[in-house]
Amino acid sequence: MATTQGQVITCKAAVAWEANKPLAIEEVQVAPPQAGEVRIKILFTALCHTDAYTWSGKDPEGLFPCILGHEAAGIVESVGEGVTEVQPGDHVIPCYQAECRECKFCKSGKTNLCGKVRAATGVGVMMSDRKSRFSKNGKPIYHFMGTSTFSQYTVVHDVSVAKIDPKAPLEKVCLLGCGVPTGLGAVWNTAKVEAGSIVAIFGLGTVGLAVAEGAKTAGASRIIGIDIDSKKFDTAKEFGVTEFINPKDHDKPIQQVIVDHTDGGVDYSFECIGNVSVMRAALECCHKGWGTSVIVGVAASGQEISTRPFQLVTGRVWKGTAFGGFKSRSQVPWLVDKYMNKEIKVDEYITHSLKLNEINKAFDLMRERGCLRCVLEVHA
Amino acid sequence: MATTQGQVITCKAAVAWEANKPLAIEEVQVAPPQAGEVRIKILFTALCHTDAYTWSGKDPEGLFPCILGHEAAGIVESVGEGVTEVQPGDHVIPCYQAECRECKFCKSGKTNLCGKVRAATGVGVMMSDRKSRFSKNGKPIYHFMGTSTFSQYTVVHDVSVAKIDPKAPLEKVCLLGCGVPTGLGAVWNTAKVEAGSIVAIFGLGTVGLAVAEGAKTAGASRIIGIDIDSKKFDTAKEFGVTEFINPKDHDKPIQQVIVDHTDGGVDYSFECIGNVSVMRAALECCHKGWGTSVIVGVAASGQEISTRPFQLVTGRVWKGTAFGGFKSRSQVPWLVDKYMNKEIKVDEYITHSLKLNEINKAFDLMRERGCLRCVLEVHA
Repeated sequence: MATTQGQVITCKAAVAWEANKPLAIEEVQVAPPQAGEVRIKILFTALCHTDAYTWSGKDPEGLFPCILGHEAAGIVESVGEGVTEVQPGDHVIPCYQAECRECKFCKSGKTNLCGKVRAATGVGVMMSDRKSRFSKNGKPIYHFMGTSTFSQYTVVHDVSVAKIDPKAPLEKVCLLGCGVPTGLGAVWNTAKVEAGSIVAIFGLGTVGLAVAEGAKTAGASRIIGIDIDSKKFDTAKEFGVTEFINPKDHDKPIQQVIVDHTDGGVDYSFECIGNVSVMRAALECCHKGWGTSVIVGVAASGQEISTRPFQLVTGRVWKGTAFGGFKSRSQVPWLVDKYMNKEIKVDEYITHSLKLNEINKAFDLMRERGCLRCVLEVHA
Repeated sequence: MATTQGQVITCKAAVAWEANKPLAIEEVQVAPPQAGEVRIKILFTALCHTDAYTWSGKDPEGLFPCILGHEAAGIVESVGEGVTEVQPGDHVIPCYQAECRECKFCKSGKTNLCGKVRAATGVGVMMSDRKSRFSKNGKPIYHFMGTSTFSQYTVVHDVSVAKIDPKAPLEKVCLLGCGVPTGLGAVWNTAKVEAGSIVAIFGLGTVGLAVAEGAKTAGASRIIGIDIDSKKFDTAKEFGVTEFINPKDHDKPIQQVIVDHTDGGVDYSFECIGNVSVMRAALECCHKGWGTSVIVGVAASGQEISTRPFQLVTGRVWKGTAFGGFKSRSQVPWLVDKYMNKEIKVDEYITHSLKLNEINKAFDLMRERGCLRCVLEVHA
């Protein structure tokens, strides 16, 4: 490691030069970490729908050229001045949701939405000098979500690094950087599902399946999976889904189907798609008096949710979650430990494994039936 | 009392024969209570905006002719078979929100929305025979909200009667049948405001002022009142409002004004108007990460609330409340006791006192500046 410390590293990265154009595997330059920054050798990264959304050009905050990727695992290569909590050689998961433990948000005890580096990561730069650490022949390339894991090396803020058990297999636990915690935490932290509850899950992708697993471990008595692809039910059963409803099999609005099916509605519902019409259905299938609906999916920019206020006045609660409400630096290591103790699934979400230079194929796979998570080996 | 028990009583009532036509003071017949019913001599009734809404004809569930009124106090005249919890002579407050202690809702421990008599009260009749106890020369007159307090005598279900301290002045505590508990409970039960919180209240009528009082007793550090009538601020101060914002004084959207004014938004907001645009502003003025907005006002039928889902995904919570989440039969007597112990205000909301035969004037007063609650003496 000593040979690269303090030096610019030239390595491979998948660069999104323009929206909606195939990513290009390029030799890029990665500058050394400055004060409060950490340079990480990324070993494995998965793809998530947020990467695809920004890449598509539909995200008005998307900046190009950029290096996407935010669900990954690696090893610290070097650290900048003042970094004390990790050192070279530590196994880490980069966290797009930072945790500084100092800001108003972190200190509130009420949220995981640390605000410390948001103003920089939101516009693709590092906080200290408002510049990127990535470049190609001198031309800067923007960071993405403060993580940019589609690169053999990346630089992140120290508040965005979770140090994990070095025995954990990085090709698996990279998934604990986004989708799986989002689903588990939506149940455990945001909804706080109790034993005996009836739960509805809209969308049975990785996040929806993680919600199912979270609900199962919380002791839910019925876990109803809703998806327009009935083929997903077999897999979903393994994650805890007990019943399946395909909206295409019904003429009535899906919320009415579920209310009829559950003697008045579910105790908790989770929208794991990012579709605003489904978000409404998820709220309205909740039981009068107490049903709580959690928005987990990310809708396209500019779209709005709506309902009659009567739905809320009669006791339903509408919430949302980001990274499942988990405090990233504190709790990602705990999730890794739970995985190592076989208390949560991770391996079961990985349906495909490819190499970094096959990343465009990996994006295509995301749209195919049967794909949950595709993990890329970054240094192969 | 013995002379009327079991007999039809002919007495005065304000009958709404048609939507939006002046109420008529009529001699009506009030049948004796059947099994599980209670006939109450109403002594004092206040007017509330829900009465005016149904009277206006805008409520699609409004039925005519009917006897409106739902915020009142009186004395039990007689009881039907099987009624054990009250007896003739008991001082009571009729409760439009029942509490049976037996249904799924009552037993849930999560809501005050008892469902036992809803199917009957929602369509203006009594549950046992699906008929009205009110008539005029044999023509039935519908009940309203299960209370119909604009009458010298009314019949209600036994699950809708709260027995109160006989020493409490009925001309005051009649207000504990709706508006004041709704505001206090929105703070105490639904939002659960903690000491030190920043609170925003949209609309400074009776309910908004009760929210202010509830927030003050909960120890809120700042209580921001928002109203388009700046003259309301002097009164609002007495109920606990510490700052006043008139949206008309600002060019920016009111949610942005409040966010700027509070370093990121309020901890809790309450919409006490029934305006869906204001409901959106109330949500969006909440602090990222934890701000909770409670819809207290009742919007007109068919209207919808909307926002970007990002508002919820970044930690805001959207809720609503009905009768402030109070269990009516159990907690209205407790509220009366709090009033008798001078722990909550009631007298201060009463700005006008009239007689039943002046009820149309009382409806006019509701639209006038300076009117909070008008109490009618029913037997004068």
